[in-house]
Amino acid sequence: MNLLQNAAAALARVRAENPLVHHLTNYVTVNDCANITLAVGASPVMAGDPDEVEDMVRAAAALVLNLGTLDSRRVDAMLAAGKRAASLGIPVILDPVGVGATPFRTVAAERIIREVPVAVIRGNAAEISQLAGLRSAIRGVDSRCGDCDAVAAAQSLSRRLSCVIAVTGRTDIAASGDRVCRIDNGHPLLKRVTGTGCMATSLIGCCSAVADPFTAAITGLLVMGIAGELAHQSLKPADGIGTFRMRLFDAVDNMTREQLLRYGKIS
Amino acid sequence: MNLLQNAAAALARVRAENPLVHHLTNYVTVNDCANITLAVGASPVMAGDPDEVEDMVRAAAALVLNLGTLDSRRVDAMLAAGKRAASLGIPVILDPVGVGATPFRTVAAERIIREVPVAVIRGNAAEISQLAGLRSAIRGVDSRCGDCDAVAAAQSLSRRLSCVIAVTGRTDIAASGDRVCRIDNGHPLLKRVTGTGCMATSLIGCCSAVADPFTAAITGLLVMGIAGELAHQSLKPADGIGTFRMRLFDAVDNMTREQLLRYGKIS
Amino acid sequence: MNLLQNAAAALARVRAENPLVHHLTNYVTVNDCANITLAVGASPVMAGDPDEVEDMVRAAAALVLNLGTLDSRRVDAMLAAGKRAASLGIPVILDPVGVGATPFRTVAAERIIREVPVAVIRGNAAEISQLAGLRSAIRGVDSRCGDCDAVAAAQSLSRRLSCVIAVTGRTDIAASGDRVCRIDNGHPLLKRVTGTGCMATSLIGCCSAVADPFTAAITGLLVMGIAGELAHQSLKPADGIGTFRMRLFDAVDNMTREQLLRYGKIS
Repeated sequence: MNLLQNAAAALARVRAENPLVHHLTNYVTVNDCANITLAVGASPVMAGDPDEVEDMVRAAAALVLNLGTLDSRRVDAMLAAGKRAASLGIPVILDPVGVGATPFRTVAAERIIREVPVAVIRGNAAEISQLAGLRSAIRGVDSRCGDCDAVAAAQSLSRRLSCVIAVTGRTDIAASGDRVCRIDNGHPLLKRVTGTGCMATSLIGCCSAVADPFTAAITGLLVMGIAGELAHQSLKPADGIGTFRMRLFDAVDNMTREQLLRYGKIS
Repeated sequence: MNLLQNAAAALARVRAENPLVHHLTNYVTVNDCANITLAVGASPVMAGDPDEVEDMVRAAAALVLNLGTLDSRRVDAMLAAGKRAASLGIPVILDPVGVGATPFRTVAAERIIREVPVAVIRGNAAEISQLAGLRSAIRGVDSRCGDCDAVAAAQSLSRRLSCVIAVTGRTDIAASGDRVCRIDNGHPLLKRVTGTGCMATSLIGCCSAVADPFTAAITGLLVMGIAGELAHQSLKPADGIGTFRMRLFDAVDNMTREQLLRYGKIS
Repeated sequence: MNLLQNAAAALARVRAENPLVHHLTNYVTVNDCANITLAVGASPVMAGDPDEVEDMVRAAAALVLNLGTLDSRRVDAMLAAGKRAASLGIPVILDPVGVGATPFRTVAAERIIREVPVAVIRGNAAEISQLAGLRSAIRGVDSRCGDCDAVAAAQSLSRRLSCVIAVTGRTDIAASGDRVCRIDNGHPLLKRVTGTGCMATSLIGCCSAVADPFTAAITGLLVMGIAGELAHQSLKPADGIGTFRMRLFDAVDNMTREQLLRYGKIS
């Protein structure tokens, strides 16, 4: 099977197995992450207090750590949940939101990748470059990294951490050591809705419950990118990002194996 | 008047009186709970810090305690608000999200029902069975309790706590001691959107501000169930859970006394 | 240029400059605030822990402080971020949600306006009257202040704090010392969706990054009010507040200079 067929199979397995995906995430986009998890066919649980994360993660098939709105108590919860997940063989997906934007955020992200063996890291080019130790430009939590070499950063970080790196941008990238996959789906409107990066990470988390991390990263990126295209195609003249956002959930909910095989542009 | 007419009258009273409903709830679905409260004709307030909950609850006509994303500070706030509400005769509605999933969550829920006289508890079959001390199966915060006897659990818990128990599932149940009401509304898509359980609890909270707890439970369950049916009926081929979710708010906003009397299936 | 033309120019500048707007806000409406910020053409960042707010605010072009779901740690973060922003010449916009509803909330709001030089305060008539030291009626976080004199309160507070006051209500008001502007846009449905006040404050924040505070207040109020009208006009018979809410984002996203000049009703 080629990569696209693997992705279609992973999507089908998420729907068949309905895996429980534990999230420790931010309060800006948590509702969107829960609904995109349901839309793709998995089940979300977001309970994230240090007092219960280790108990909760045991029932999960994947763990998503998203650094969006971070505090020190949340970092403790992520470390505890991440270590417990890793010890149980549950894949950990990290979204290092805004790493590099503040020292607190950078220290937290670096501590997590040092102490928790992660399966996939999903970020934009600036975040991945920052973690890779390369030059990056970040403003707030958005990348302004037009010219940094996302592929080189992704491969370097992948080799150092022995994990899969997923980079979202005009072209999405999944890197696993020497293997690199480019995904040319998506639409510029995805950057005009908050949480589409977080949702891509959640989708990767859902897929990592049923597939290897490289396939999971590709599948999550494909589903989000194609959903963006389909959501855009459905818009009428007076529609805008409100309708587009709603249509993203519709598109993920309705996404078929055939759509993924027909519209997926990977190389 | 029969139960359906009582429910229609309760809905009309919510709209006429616009009661203030104080929520201490989770950050996953808090926005949905606020908007469903507005949709049914009540007013939400979500301020939940221990430093102000006792002052805030005094102005409210009902208090909703939802255990979704719990921490120890939040438990303290719930206990303080719940006791103050009870002492003022303000009905307290409890949603024991995920009780049984972790020891922390179970201890918190049991402490709340021991220390706060609640008017209604709304949960799924697994949560209610857990609180009733019966066998249950819970995974994350979702029930996987296909075969447990929800009616027996609801009645047992209702008698022990002298409160009304509302159970959502394929058939919804409201139990108050010997009285049991089954509600056969709803649609499977309701389980595919996060927060529909929380929203049902909020609706019960809104109704409990203007009606007795048993009527409030029935009314809240009916409104949510019928809204699910109407939202589903409005879907076009390419629509999915994004559109369905939006239509839930439309349906609750537009729900008439006539719709409730015509579509309500209670026995 | 008159006020309406200034507002149209401010809207155009937000879109051209895409300013970063830092929010310390509540978890009820934070997602809506982020999406309305994106809809108007700015970029949101919501990271709000005391451990990083001072680092984060340095990159921002405006800072929004929203007291919705407050706790003492959040107050500390607001004070630190607000002082840092003021020292860097970054405008601070305050939304004193529910001030007067509890002593904790009132003390926090008064401390912030004493210690942080704010550029604009946006509230309803009860909140502004409370801060102005005039009689007010507040229930929960909603104003029940039908008869208080919003203009007098706004002008009094504006003079005392040397800042711009924006009051939302049936008629919106922007006051800057002797200058008073009335905005007669909006629709009653805006009060039936949670977060429309918070979103108006965010829009003012976005505009304050590119325009003087008085123009920013007028522009934000105009954009929200006209969006409410356009969202309402687009509704079909079975639509309700779910669809209306989605259309608000569409309308802000698509709002043109021409719409603002044509529909804006200011005096």
